[in-house]
Amino acid sequence: GIAEDALMARIEAHAAIGAIDGGGVCRIALTDADRQGRDQLVRWMKELDLEVRIDRVGNIFGIRAGITDAAPVMTGSHIDTVATGGRYDGNYGVMAGLEVVRWLDARGRRTLRPIVVAAFTNEEGVRFMPDMMGSLVHAGGLSPDAALDTLGTDGARLGDELARIGYAGDMACGAIVPHAFVELHIEQGPVLEAEGLAIGAVQDLQGISWQEISIVGQSNHAGTTPMRLRHDAGYCAAAIAVFVRDLARRYGGSQVGTVGVLDLHPNLINVIAARATLTIDLRNTDEVMLRRAEAELEAHLRELEKKEGVTIEARRLARFEPVVFDAGLVRRIEASARARGLPSRRMTSGAGHDAQMMARICPAAMIFVPSERGISHNPREHTAPAELANGASVLLDVMLALADE
Amino acid sequence: GIAEDALMARIEAHAAIGAIDGGGVCRIALTDADRQGRDQLVRWMKELDLEVRIDRVGNIFGIRAGITDAAPVMTGSHIDTVATGGRYDGNYGVMAGLEVVRWLDARGRRTLRPIVVAAFTNEEGVRFMPDMMGSLVHAGGLSPDAALDTLGTDGARLGDELARIGYAGDMACGAIVPHAFVELHIEQGPVLEAEGLAIGAVQDLQGISWQEISIVGQSNHAGTTPMRLRHDAGYCAAAIAVFVRDLARRYGGSQVGTVGVLDLHPNLINVIAARATLTIDLRNTDEVMLRRAEAELEAHLRELEKKEGVTIEARRLARFEPVVFDAGLVRRIEASARARGLPSRRMTSGAGHDAQMMARICPAAMIFVPSERGISHNPREHTAPAELANGASVLLDVMLALADE
Ligand SMILES: NC(=O)NCCC(=O)O
Ligand SMILES: NC(=O)NCCC(=O)O
Repeated sequence: GIAEDALMARIEAHAAIGAIDGGGVCRIALTDADRQGRDQLVRWMKELDLEVRIDRVGNIFGIRAGITDAAPVMTGSHIDTVATGGRYDGNYGVMAGLEVVRWLDARGRRTLRPIVVAAFTNEEGVRFMPDMMGSLVHAGGLSPDAALDTLGTDGARLGDELARIGYAGDMACGAIVPHAFVELHIEQGPVLEAEGLAIGAVQDLQGISWQEISIVGQSNHAGTTPMRLRHDAGYCAAAIAVFVRDLARRYGGSQVGTVGVLDLHPNLINVIAARATLTIDLRNTDEVMLRRAEAELEAHLRELEKKEGVTIEARRLARFEPVVFDAGLVRRIEASARARGLPSRRMTSGAGHDAQMMARICPAAMIFVPSERGISHNPREHTAPAELANGASVLLDVMLALADE
Repeated sequence: GIAEDALMARIEAHAAIGAIDGGGVCRIALTDADRQGRDQLVRWMKELDLEVRIDRVGNIFGIRAGITDAAPVMTGSHIDTVATGGRYDGNYGVMAGLEVVRWLDARGRRTLRPIVVAAFTNEEGVRFMPDMMGSLVHAGGLSPDAALDTLGTDGARLGDELARIGYAGDMACGAIVPHAFVELHIEQGPVLEAEGLAIGAVQDLQGISWQEISIVGQSNHAGTTPMRLRHDAGYCAAAIAVFVRDLARRYGGSQVGTVGVLDLHPNLINVIAARATLTIDLRNTDEVMLRRAEAELEAHLRELEKKEGVTIEARRLARFEPVVFDAGLVRRIEASARARGLPSRRMTSGAGHDAQMMARICPAAMIFVPSERGISHNPREHTAPAELANGASVLLDVMLALADE
């Protein structure tokens, strides 16, 4: 299998780029730190003699030629992070892809099909929405021009930032249609650790609904304005956040709901807020339930609007239906784990991933390894080196089999 | 009485300093805009031949000599504003004081007692806490040194900012002990307008409790973290804001409760918030009820802490007990209104005011005029010129009577 030391050296070297306190990484898409991360990745790809191609939205592909030029087997993930991210989210899958290539090279092992290691632009979606943007464009779900024209939370245009960091490539988006796509990733949740398992064979992925809610009320004096005469945008924002939590609890199953962003204006102690902005992240593996949750939320917003005398607008930031991965690939992942004596289970991904977009154009699936205490999107995100190496070895097995068929 | 045109000219000229969109004013304490407002006020005081004295915390006093040097009659208010303030909050009372002086001068009218027009430092308390700071120091409720050492929300030290804008005076704080203090102010609430009244004779003022709440939870992935495993600081902040609203509704009477500030960290759409900060403003005319509200809130915080697995800390930012104003002064205000044919009522102030601090060292009361739709701490704050002049004329009557006794 894949050697733990070599894999860890690569992951650690790459995680040093954009390192923040507490062992985490801040490498938000298309910032200078992202540029440095990309530069390192491209250097490594060239050291491995991969042909490096960059498409119009900055997706990076490192191609190892096959004996034939049949459709390639692709792996990969992303190297951008959230503002307070960990060392493994995304980065791990790309580095493991490079280690699979090195393993083959070390053995002079050729494959029938080409092998491609991909790093997709802007998977996290914290600066530019939607998330999984690079793979979404690759899969034809968003036009390259629309992606390039996206404005970030800081007002920057994605295309300008991409040019600024030198990654506006010239390859047509979607030019490479793989035979299959397999993504290796940390679970980012608590399931594998809790059950003492080494490998997750990801069979499906939750639908994701992201909205931004803007509330306009009326600012007024916190001391002199009777409770019944208020149009308090801050209270409405809080009530919505509490509603989202209650809704997720009430639905149960795979339903989750999160208000991660909440801003008040003017944000002063003795002034009733005139305006509030919040984001709502709803997820469910069941599209019918997800739609029901969205409709309930919408009804709650309308009710609140009437009751509180405010206006509430909802803007869709991202919406992806649940995805079912390729059953044959899932079985191959399980078979590899079994052959290596690694306990595994089939599971659902709560996080969005590039594989979810790639599933639109080719058979796709994912391999998960445990996340300590389920902590992710947090500098304390951790997975033990041996577990990271296990996952990379399963990736190697699956890719080898696919590349020779 | 006081001439509407002259009063309005002064108010408008002063409101132009720090003017913002929508007709409002942003003149936060000890900023450059505050300095410009102070400079204009001092020029006007000197034009009226007032002796200008500035104390160690920057309170400005314009003194018109009396026939005797008995304790002076003082009026005044403040000229600082919130970030999105109106044109009348504070400013009105100071400008009206100058117009009372001009009225006396125009008639060559001397008074037995000196007359003092005061502008107190940092009444709003949005940058430096607590609010009503200048009058609190004047009344002996806070040491000048403690006030000067206060750090602002921007990290600046009050004493440094005061020196920077040139208003670190040398008069000892509290050196002037008035015979009586009368403050003229807009109501900032809806009561007078709703009842079609011209004048409010303010007989008491709500107790004010300000706290800052800091919550530490655990950031984690919004998609992969099951609802029951979350330690969501953002949810806790929202739950507290909803609790505060419910508590105020439940208590009824004069109880109000507001969460005006709410900040999440890292404030990202797909990350459960690790930390949250919010402010809570609770007010009641009844000290027993206010204490009960504080205790209920505290119990709620402890319960939430346990239930959600987070830590919650409360820091007191300001705490003032309710104040009952001088009954004799309140009667004089009513008598003046009656004599001028202006309908009036006794009322409570929901807002904190400098008069509340001055009441600790001398008989004090307040005169309110209506606020259109009760809107204040908002650029759209408005009172008609004729109503502003009415209030100033009542102030004139009351001061004249006090100054000759
Ligand atoms: N894997 C991951 O963190 N993706 C970011 C998009 C999401 O919030 O699920
Ligand atoms: N009058 C006034 O707005 N005072 C500021 C302090 C407060 O009551 O919040």
